[in-house]
Amino acid sequence: MTPIAVDYLVGVDLGGTKIMAGVYGPDLLMVGCAKRKTKAERGVDAVIERIARTVREAVEESGLTIEQVRGVGIGAPGAVDPAAGQVVFAVNLAWKDVALASALQTELGVPVFLENDCNLAMLGIWEREFQRTPRDAVGIFLGTGIGGGLILNGALYGGFRHAAGEIGHMTLDVNGHVCGCGNRGCFETLASRNALFRMLSDAVAAGEPTLLTQMLGANLNGLRSGDLRKAIRRGDALTERIVRGSAEFTGVAVANLISVLHPQLVVLGGGVIEALGFLMMPIISRRAKAHLLPGTLEGIEIVESTLADNAGITGGAVLARDQLGMKVLHQPHEVAGT
Amino acid sequence: MTPIAVDYLVGVDLGGTKIMAGVYGPDLLMVGCAKRKTKAERGVDAVIERIARTVREAVEESGLTIEQVRGVGIGAPGAVDPAAGQVVFAVNLAWKDVALASALQTELGVPVFLENDCNLAMLGIWEREFQRTPRDAVGIFLGTGIGGGLILNGALYGGFRHAAGEIGHMTLDVNGHVCGCGNRGCFETLASRNALFRMLSDAVAAGEPTLLTQMLGANLNGLRSGDLRKAIRRGDALTERIVRGSAEFTGVAVANLISVLHPQLVVLGGGVIEALGFLMMPIISRRAKAHLLPGTLEGIEIVESTLADNAGITGGAVLARDQLGMKVLHQPHEVAGT
Repeated sequence: MTPIAVDYLVGVDLGGTKIMAGVYGPDLLMVGCAKRKTKAERGVDAVIERIARTVREAVEESGLTIEQVRGVGIGAPGAVDPAAGQVVFAVNLAWKDVALASALQTELGVPVFLENDCNLAMLGIWEREFQRTPRDAVGIFLGTGIGGGLILNGALYGGFRHAAGEIGHMTLDVNGHVCGCGNRGCFETLASRNALFRMLSDAVAAGEPTLLTQMLGANLNGLRSGDLRKAIRRGDALTERIVRGSAEFTGVAVANLISVLHPQLVVLGGGVIEALGFLMMPIISRRAKAHLLPGTLEGIEIVESTLADNAGITGGAVLARDQLGMKVLHQPHEVAGT
Repeated sequence: MTPIAVDYLVGVDLGGTKIMAGVYGPDLLMVGCAKRKTKAERGVDAVIERIARTVREAVEESGLTIEQVRGVGIGAPGAVDPAAGQVVFAVNLAWKDVALASALQTELGVPVFLENDCNLAMLGIWEREFQRTPRDAVGIFLGTGIGGGLILNGALYGGFRHAAGEIGHMTLDVNGHVCGCGNRGCFETLASRNALFRMLSDAVAAGEPTLLTQMLGANLNGLRSGDLRKAIRRGDALTERIVRGSAEFTGVAVANLISVLHPQLVVLGGGVIEALGFLMMPIISRRAKAHLLPGTLEGIEIVESTLADNAGITGGAVLARDQLGMKVLHQPHEVAGT
């Protein structure tokens, strides 16, 4: 009998609405996955138990046992302290100071490593799509809100207290719409899913015609990013105009980030880009190029991530592998014994 | 006879209007300085000769000879390639692809190291005022235009092609005033010296009363930042209103940079801050604090640099010392023989 392989890694993406888990071989190819609703309203312990269940399901789905898993990397929305394994603050989960890594480690009997969700997605994209080649790279994730992940000088950059990358709250329009954070004209008020839905609802309320009301009724109940894609593909002028406008603002945000950080790569992802990238990406690139000083953009790539929804779980596997790589070198017994 | 000391360093700040040179001991205390007009219109060779003359004058002023100088660090406005010692592009000088370091090294017979002027100023501030303590720090320089210098993970950050830190071209007001770069509402159009003067001229043209016209005439001929300070100190409402407005925008820019980079320190300098910091700094801090999510600003310092106009030449000495530190280790003959 050959010894069973024990070098699998699990990546977990903990979101406000759903939990995803993916099992990866040491080559970072996914062998199985699972997902379930977060149900944050049930409280911290219930959510941690649901995460553990999702991980076990993904492992079983992969035809493996938890003993074959070397480590778990998990991304949480909000401010995290990776060294302490602690979620400091997560608005979407209503969490404050939750020792997620140790709690999950106790549930699973496997080492658990924590990161911010956007940082983790960027880590996954940087490793799997770009083989860690660009030394400096910025990830922009357009979803319900907008978040970012920074790779600077060849490593995830967290800044003081690991809170860098909050690009959704860059002010782009100082006299613009009020944001959830209390300020006006944050990037997030101009190009997130919430922003798109708000602008569409306002236009519908103002009596502008759109196929979306035929598809979903006057209240746009259950509106999803995919509905916008369908409406645009069917020639809906209102939806196309609003999405184009958000893409222009995203181009300005890309230009701002290039002016400040001058990365070699800007990569966009998240649900909004997954659904609407076909229309938005050319506009984003054109606007960013038009915005920057001549020559400034030379050699810089502005691209859409191909990992889509899997960026976070991929990054979780990368994080666990990287961290275990260190642990194997310095603390072999701790890893073997856990 | 004791051997003469040969460990002096010269920092040079090459600006569009003036050249400054300062001579520093190995302890980074200045022992002498000199300055002269740049006269960029006379062409590259003439300017390089003028830089060399300013360096020699500063050395003589210090009671030293050029043989006692180990190295020169120089900051140039615009895009530079430090490894090649090349000024890639400098609008204010009308320079393109100038091999400044080697030309000056030939003139002086001393190793010369090149950096971007704002990076160099930030390096000087970080070393002299903050003893390199904050791992992540952002410098914001409000002068004729607006530039920035980034210290990330304990070192100057240049990004891809060394063009990071162009914070003056962050868009803050997407529908705002047109900038020299062709876009609208760049930070530079809201808080640079040029922006302040433009807003004052517009207000005077619109018939608003101000002490400045009593001081300088209806055309505000020869207006300087110091005149704004005088006018405000004498109770001029227009000048105070406009400077306060620029401080508010600067606070928004500080908040943006904290959101993206989360540095431990934000330090402001440049001629506008030197003249008007007494009014602007409290507004900048207040606005940045109001702008950021609660808790985000905890532990972050927002301060005015005390080095003022000497930040650049101090940084030049630091750069030369750091670079020579490396050269002494690896190429002793080259340094000794130059």
